[in-house]
Amino acid sequence: MNKRIATVIAAGLLSASTFSLAETPQNVILIIGDGMDDQQISIARNYLVGSQGRLTLDAMPVRSTAQVLTVDNDDPNKPVYVADSANSATSLATGVITSRGRIATTAKTDQSITTIIEMAQQAGLKTGIVSTASVTDATPASFIAHIDKRFCEDPSMMIDGLMHGRFPIECESYTKANGRSGSISEQLAASNVDVILGGGMQHFDIAAEASDKTVLQQAVDNGFNIVTSVAELENANNDSKLLGLFSPSTMPTLMRGENGRIAEAPEKSVMNHIYKYLGEITPPPVMICEDNPKFASMPTMKQMTDAAISHLDSNQGFFLMIESASIDKASHGRNACGSIGEVQQLNAALDSALAYAETSPNTLIIVTADHGQAAQMIPEVSLFSNAAYGGLPAATPGLIARIKTPEGSIMGVNYATNESFAEEHTGVNVPVFANIVGQDVIAPMITQPDIFTITANHLGLK
Amino acid sequence: MNKRIATVIAAGLLSASTFSLAETPQNVILIIGDGMDDQQISIARNYLVGSQGRLTLDAMPVRSTAQVLTVDNDDPNKPVYVADSANSATSLATGVITSRGRIATTAKTDQSITTIIEMAQQAGLKTGIVSTASVTDATPASFIAHIDKRFCEDPSMMIDGLMHGRFPIECESYTKANGRSGSISEQLAASNVDVILGGGMQHFDIAAEASDKTVLQQAVDNGFNIVTSVAELENANNDSKLLGLFSPSTMPTLMRGENGRIAEAPEKSVMNHIYKYLGEITPPPVMICEDNPKFASMPTMKQMTDAAISHLDSNQGFFLMIESASIDKASHGRNACGSIGEVQQLNAALDSALAYAETSPNTLIIVTADHGQAAQMIPEVSLFSNAAYGGLPAATPGLIARIKTPEGSIMGVNYATNESFAEEHTGVNVPVFANIVGQDVIAPMITQPDIFTITANHLGLK
Ligand SMILES: [Zn+2]
Ligand SMILES: [Zn+2]
Repeated sequence: MNKRIATVIAAGLLSASTFSLAETPQNVILIIGDGMDDQQISIARNYLVGSQGRLTLDAMPVRSTAQVLTVDNDDPNKPVYVADSANSATSLATGVITSRGRIATTAKTDQSITTIIEMAQQAGLKTGIVSTASVTDATPASFIAHIDKRFCEDPSMMIDGLMHGRFPIECESYTKANGRSGSISEQLAASNVDVILGGGMQHFDIAAEASDKTVLQQAVDNGFNIVTSVAELENANNDSKLLGLFSPSTMPTLMRGENGRIAEAPEKSVMNHIYKYLGEITPPPVMICEDNPKFASMPTMKQMTDAAISHLDSNQGFFLMIESASIDKASHGRNACGSIGEVQQLNAALDSALAYAETSPNTLIIVTADHGQAAQMIPEVSLFSNAAYGGLPAATPGLIARIKTPEGSIMGVNYATNESFAEEHTGVNVPVFANIVGQDVIAPMITQPDIFTITANHLGLK
Repeated sequence: MNKRIATVIAAGLLSASTFSLAETPQNVILIIGDGMDDQQISIARNYLVGSQGRLTLDAMPVRSTAQVLTVDNDDPNKPVYVADSANSATSLATGVITSRGRIATTAKTDQSITTIIEMAQQAGLKTGIVSTASVTDATPASFIAHIDKRFCEDPSMMIDGLMHGRFPIECESYTKANGRSGSISEQLAASNVDVILGGGMQHFDIAAEASDKTVLQQAVDNGFNIVTSVAELENANNDSKLLGLFSPSTMPTLMRGENGRIAEAPEKSVMNHIYKYLGEITPPPVMICEDNPKFASMPTMKQMTDAAISHLDSNQGFFLMIESASIDKASHGRNACGSIGEVQQLNAALDSALAYAETSPNTLIIVTADHGQAAQMIPEVSLFSNAAYGGLPAATPGLIARIKTPEGSIMGVNYATNESFAEEHTGVNVPVFANIVGQDVIAPMITQPDIFTITANHLGLK
C-alpha cells in the first residue's frame, strides 16, 4: 500500500469524515494521443470494439474540442494553420502559442517559457512523464526542456549535427559552451522530474558535452535510478527519481499490419493509365492487424502509467503527462494497424488513470490530441463505382489499407497528404475528454493554451 | 407580430407568471451540415473569423459527437463504415440504421419507416424542411418520403431512368402503377408538410406519372402555395402550405474560388517525374474566395430559415429540419471556398434559430453533420520540405487549394480520396451541438439514431 493511501486510511480511523475531497491531493493526469484526431479514434473504435462499441475514451463524461494554434517564427502575429508536436506541446505545457519545431521557447524572440512541470516542482508537487516515443521527442521535451529546435535531441546533434544523417541542423547556440543548457537529453538528465519513462536510450548512452561521462551517467549523478526492462520497472523503489529507457529510440508499436504490411497503392490497368474513366483499378488485398513481434519485451503504456502513478502518488499532489506517441508516427508511415494499437494502449492507460482517480477523487484527467493526422476512413469500395454510376474505375490517388475488422467488415484507411516519405499533419481542431472533475472547468470549446490554464488552476499554481 | 407571441403576451397581461416554460410550445430545429465534419468547421473558421475566432457553432453550450452507423443491404447485421446522406438522414429522421442510398426504408426488407415528420404531423405539430439542395435530395427526402433509391427523384427517373443520363437506375417497383407512392417529388407534392423550401424545380415542373398535370400542379391541388423568388418568399402568407423552389436543382453556393478556381494538382518538374526525391514540385498559385455571381438572386439559408420559422411558429409546436447541403457537394467537387460559404450560411441560419429560441424557450436546437467529407487542412508548405529535411520535393498526390485568408495567412485544403470525378465521404464520427435546452438530454457521445429519439422525446412523440 502506498504512503498516501495508508495515511488517509489511518486518518479515517480517527474520524469518518476525514476522507473528504478537500483533503485529498490535487493531481492532474494529462494524456496526449499524438495525432489522435476523430478519424484516428473512429478507425480504432471500429477495429477494437466495433462500429457500435465504445472505447473508454468515448465514455468519458466531459467532451470538448481544442483549437490548435501555431504562429510564424518570423512574424508571430501571423497564424500558421497546421501545427507540429513541438509547438502544440508547448501550448499545452506553457500556455504560450509558438512556432513549429520549438520546445518551450517563444517564436522569434527565442525566450524560455516556464512549463507546468517547472511550476509544479516550484510549488512542491511531484511530476512525471511517460511517453512511447523517445523521452527526448517533441511532446515530452516541451514539458521539461527549452530549445529552439526539436531535433537537438542529444549532444551529437549540437555541433555540426545532421538530421537523418544528411541535412545540417543548427543547435550550436544552445550548447553549454555557449552558456546554455545543452541538448534535450542533457536537460532531462539535469532535471528534477520524479519519473521519466519511455524510449530513447541512444540519446542518453552517448558522451555528454565537454565531459568524460555519458548523459546517462550524468542522470545517475543527478539522482536518477535507471531502469531498462519491465522487471526492473516493476521492482523500482519509489524513493529516488526514476528514469526508464526501454528502447533505443521510439518504442515499437503494439500492433502492425499483417506480415508488416502498410497502406498500398491501388493497381491500375494499362487502359486506366491511358484514360482514367476506362479500364480497371484493383485495390490492394485486404489485411488483418496482428501483434508486432518487436513489441514483445516492451512495457505497455499501461504498465508505465501504473508505475508512474505509484511513484507520484503522495499527499503533495502531482502532474503527470502521458503520451501515446505512435498514433502519429504510425500514421506518418501509413501504418493503420500501428495507430490502432497505440489508441488501444492509450485507452488502457486511461483505464489505469480512471481507476486511480477512484481512490484519489481530486485527480483531474484530461485526454486530448496535439494535432490532426493524415489518415482518413474512406469507403473501401468507392461511393462512385457502384451500379448507379456504371462501375467507373475509382480509387484514391494515395495509399490505402483495407483492414478486415473483428466484426467481419472491411475498413478502408486512406493516406494521401504527401507523396514523399511521410504523411502530413492536419489543422483540424482536436477532441478533448475529461473525467467528472473537469465538468465545470472545461468549456465545450477551448484552445490548447486553455488546457495549460485549466491544469495550473487545478493544481493551485500561479 | 405572429399569433403565438401575441397570445403569450396577451396572456401575460392577465398574469405575470403565465409566460412559463411549461406553457411555451415544444419545438425542435435540427440543422444538418451535410459533410460538415471538424475539418470543414476548422477550415471555415480560419477563413470566416480567423484561427482564434469562434463561429456561432463553436460557441454552442452543448457539444457532443455522433457515431455514424450504416449497414450492408444484403446482410443488415454487417456494418459498413462510411455512410451516404440517404442512410445517415434516415438514421436521424427515423432512428433506424439502414443501407446506403435508402430513403426511410429498411435495409434488405425494404419496408417504409415512419419519420419524425410523420409522427409530428400525427400529433398535430407543424413541420418544415429547408435545404440548399433540391428538396428531393437525399437529406430532405429522408424526412418525408420512402423509397429504396435516392436517385428516384422525379417521375422521369421511374421507368428506364438513367443516372447522369447514362447509367440505368431501377425505380419501377415504386411507381404508382405498382401501387406505391411514386417518385420523391410526387411524394413531397402529396405530403402535408407545412413548409418546404429549397432548390429542385426541375423535379416538380415535369409530367406526373399517369397524369396530364405536372408534379407542381399536383402540389397546388394539394394546397401548396408555390413561391420561386425572394420577394415571393417574403410576401407569402402563413395560412396555407408553402413550397418554395428557387433553382432547378441544387441552389448555387454563396461563395466560390477566385474566378471559379477549385483545388488543383501541384506541378512536377521532369526530374521529379523520374524520381520523386529529385527535381521540383510547384504548388498551385494562391487564391482568395469570392462571391459566387450565380448566387445573386437566391434567398440565403438564413432568409429561408426565417420564413420557415415564421410559418411554423404557433401554439402547437413544430419540427423543422434545415440542411446546408453544399458543404458536402462543394467538397465532392474540390471547391473549398464553396464549402466555406455554406458553413457561413449554416452559421447565419443558426443565428436565426437561436434568436427565435430566445422568444420560445422550449425550442431545442441541434446542429450536426450527416457524415465526414474528404477535405483536409494540410500544411501549405510540407512539414517535410523545410531546411531540416534539405528541401526535398513534397506534395499531395491529390489536389490542393491554397487559400489566402482575410487574416493574411495561406491555408492548404487537400482533396485526395478519389481520382475520379468526385471525392468520397469519410467514416469519422461527426460533431453535435445544441443550445442549452439540450444540456441534460444529449450525452457527450451519442449515435445518429439517438438524435431521432432525443427529438421525439422533446416533442412528446411516441
Ligand atoms: Zn507527427
Ligand atoms: Zn455527399
